[in-house]
Amino acid sequence: MAIEIEKRPTVGLSKVATSDTHGEDSPYFAGWKAYDENPFDEVYNPSGIIQMGLAENQVSFDLLEEYLEKHKEVAKCGSGISSFRENALFQDYHGLLSFRKAMASFMGQVRAGRATFDPDRVIITAGATAANELLTFILADPGDALLVPTPYYPGFDRDLRWRTGVNIIQVHCDSSNNFQVTPQALEEAYKEAESKNIKVRGLLITNPSNPLGSTVQRCVLEEILEFVTRKNIHLVSDEIYSGSAFCCSEFVSIAEILESRNYKDSERVHIVYSLSKDLGLPGFRVGTIYSYNDKVVTTARRMSSFTLISSQTQQLLASMLSDKKFTKNYIKTNRERLRRRYEMIIGGLRSAGIECLKGNAGLFCWMNLSPLLEKPTKECELAVWNTILHEVKLNISPGSSCHCSEPGWFRVCFANMSENTLQIALKRIHDFMETRKIIQKH
Amino acid sequence: MAIEIEKRPTVGLSKVATSDTHGEDSPYFAGWKAYDENPFDEVYNPSGIIQMGLAENQVSFDLLEEYLEKHKEVAKCGSGISSFRENALFQDYHGLLSFRKAMASFMGQVRAGRATFDPDRVIITAGATAANELLTFILADPGDALLVPTPYYPGFDRDLRWRTGVNIIQVHCDSSNNFQVTPQALEEAYKEAESKNIKVRGLLITNPSNPLGSTVQRCVLEEILEFVTRKNIHLVSDEIYSGSAFCCSEFVSIAEILESRNYKDSERVHIVYSLSKDLGLPGFRVGTIYSYNDKVVTTARRMSSFTLISSQTQQLLASMLSDKKFTKNYIKTNRERLRRRYEMIIGGLRSAGIECLKGNAGLFCWMNLSPLLEKPTKECELAVWNTILHEVKLNISPGSSCHCSEPGWFRVCFANMSENTLQIALKRIHDFMETRKIIQKH
Repeated sequence: MAIEIEKRPTVGLSKVATSDTHGEDSPYFAGWKAYDENPFDEVYNPSGIIQMGLAENQVSFDLLEEYLEKHKEVAKCGSGISSFRENALFQDYHGLLSFRKAMASFMGQVRAGRATFDPDRVIITAGATAANELLTFILADPGDALLVPTPYYPGFDRDLRWRTGVNIIQVHCDSSNNFQVTPQALEEAYKEAESKNIKVRGLLITNPSNPLGSTVQRCVLEEILEFVTRKNIHLVSDEIYSGSAFCCSEFVSIAEILESRNYKDSERVHIVYSLSKDLGLPGFRVGTIYSYNDKVVTTARRMSSFTLISSQTQQLLASMLSDKKFTKNYIKTNRERLRRRYEMIIGGLRSAGIECLKGNAGLFCWMNLSPLLEKPTKECELAVWNTILHEVKLNISPGSSCHCSEPGWFRVCFANMSENTLQIALKRIHDFMETRKIIQKH
Repeated sequence: MAIEIEKRPTVGLSKVATSDTHGEDSPYFAGWKAYDENPFDEVYNPSGIIQMGLAENQVSFDLLEEYLEKHKEVAKCGSGISSFRENALFQDYHGLLSFRKAMASFMGQVRAGRATFDPDRVIITAGATAANELLTFILADPGDALLVPTPYYPGFDRDLRWRTGVNIIQVHCDSSNNFQVTPQALEEAYKEAESKNIKVRGLLITNPSNPLGSTVQRCVLEEILEFVTRKNIHLVSDEIYSGSAFCCSEFVSIAEILESRNYKDSERVHIVYSLSKDLGLPGFRVGTIYSYNDKVVTTARRMSSFTLISSQTQQLLASMLSDKKFTKNYIKTNRERLRRRYEMIIGGLRSAGIECLKGNAGLFCWMNLSPLLEKPTKECELAVWNTILHEVKLNISPGSSCHCSEPGWFRVCFANMSENTLQIALKRIHDFMETRKIIQKH
């Protein structure tokens, strides 16, 4: 009997379960692990690793706290019994109308009213992670491809590919034009797919860009729209950092371009948004899809059954985002504080002899350490990354984990820590660069 | 130019988006729509449709409300600023440890301590809908099959098949043995898959059963475990109604069987749970997977990125479920109240001349209207359903929407309304049966 049990084959799992297309074996995630094992703390672990690999916004959290302190009724499920009963029960968890209205209005406000959004086109999902996957399920079949400009957010390898079986074809961008997407690069990627007999179903851009920390120019957006229309493919515009552009007028949403064109060809355009970055609420898992395509709206709403948001959280946020005085002040103050942080880190890095791509948005800067590389290869980039992680004790994300085709670039987050911690991080980089100079002299 | 635009083909969507494998075109969902258009209200719409197609538990909601009234601090994010900050931010949204501990302990309590659960094996998902889909992605490849005994919850057609591309092969059960699963029926379903060249990867059971409203017997569970072990396939036990068995001792969890066998062969077993039914909190979207397979735990946790629970809701429930005095009283009272409701509806139906399957769990009974069918066909069943929906004004779910192979059975929910509304529904059925008798006499 014992032998029989041993002989019995282990029960198998699916290809999805055993594949590594989730992409989480990259240095991007390895750096998080290293941080988790030895996290910096000003008092208790001052020689620990400082986490600069996490795009999290803590600079405006006090504004949320102040709001909740002033509006205690918003968070209480206990006393407003009838509202607790209402929101804990079935119905409308595909999105409370009050919440979808508040989201649509907030999205318009972030764009300073230059675009308007219809609550009936808002689909809610448990975070942008789910929103991007859900759209991929709707737009492409297994084996098809989405084009994605590089460098891109490492999580896309998981979100767009893993369970959908869809491929990513990279659109290569480089520093010669500040990593902006060009029609040539789009055509080349499209041809690459054709040569591999892979059907391209769409293009996904992030605007403002993660990891670049910069917005996509209006003329580039127009070229992109022209391209997807000519190829008759979809365009997903991931705009989860739209409220994190340092100056509202420097960010142009695809929604504005469509509005100015009277929504011509808009059926191929879908916007992803989230409150994780602009409002700094990743734990609440709030993502949305905004689609101009009726069939996509219907299907996405049905599909959102797999990834809904707790009605408790919807209700809290519906109240908060409906307070226009609060949201107006929040958006303005948050932009100013992010710019201040950005200038602090850029200035600090410059005085250490490091240049960054000119940024105007996001919770990170795109740092050029290519002068430090022995050779311009991915291996040498990872060697520098390794030194910075384990000796300088900073977790930053290597460009190669974002599939950047030019070695030597790193994403450095600056909004997930106190100003004091940021200064300590800058001091560490400064000292590191000093030792490099000494080594180079000898 | 205008001609060119017209000629341009409409941008296409994926096969998943355009297929109907979501199964939502069934009378199960059509009945909901009819209800939505004309919902009964005792005061404002006393001739409207009474919703008896929704498995929702409102009978114990007052206990939750009372708890929240007494423990106002639990729901406030506003005043406990540091805890708001902590739970709104990144990290641990794969499941706050406090929440996973509370869930594991609650699952043990529901089983009266006859099985214990390890918090490290609890994976959280946004509802059982997501849990079942996620497990299917992990256990089976597109084109493979899961065996599912009939009648089954109509949503499984969506959850198990739609985005995964996995097939359902039905295991036919019938009234001759109260719809219990037999080894013969399992073998037949397995052979059917073999004859179609489809690889069977697992068996999914619901225990207590939806729509039967009865628990699976211990000896049947043992036969099932023997079957999946012999075939070397997985077993998913969906136990979302475990706390809704009217008497705790009448429900046997697969976890108890495994525990009594010292977890032999447990690597193939996975339990799905949720708070939507037993705690009556569907709006909160709280589902869990409990797996005895380490690789499934790791993969499911990674995959849960697509379907997480708001940390605000996790925190509220962690507090509530950690209060053992509260949960003990809740579980006991909820069982008693459900039994009372069950007896009320069974008695009412019997006095109208209708028999039901003997039930001992759940929020519904399984009603036999086969004597009313002109012929024993699906068409005649749907004709009766249509009359009851549009003339008697009750939305009940026809057995055919649950893929029941015996025509004439209907699922009737009884816990989503007041006792008064239930009496009105019973009066309507009584009157309907009276007119039938008159018609038959003539």
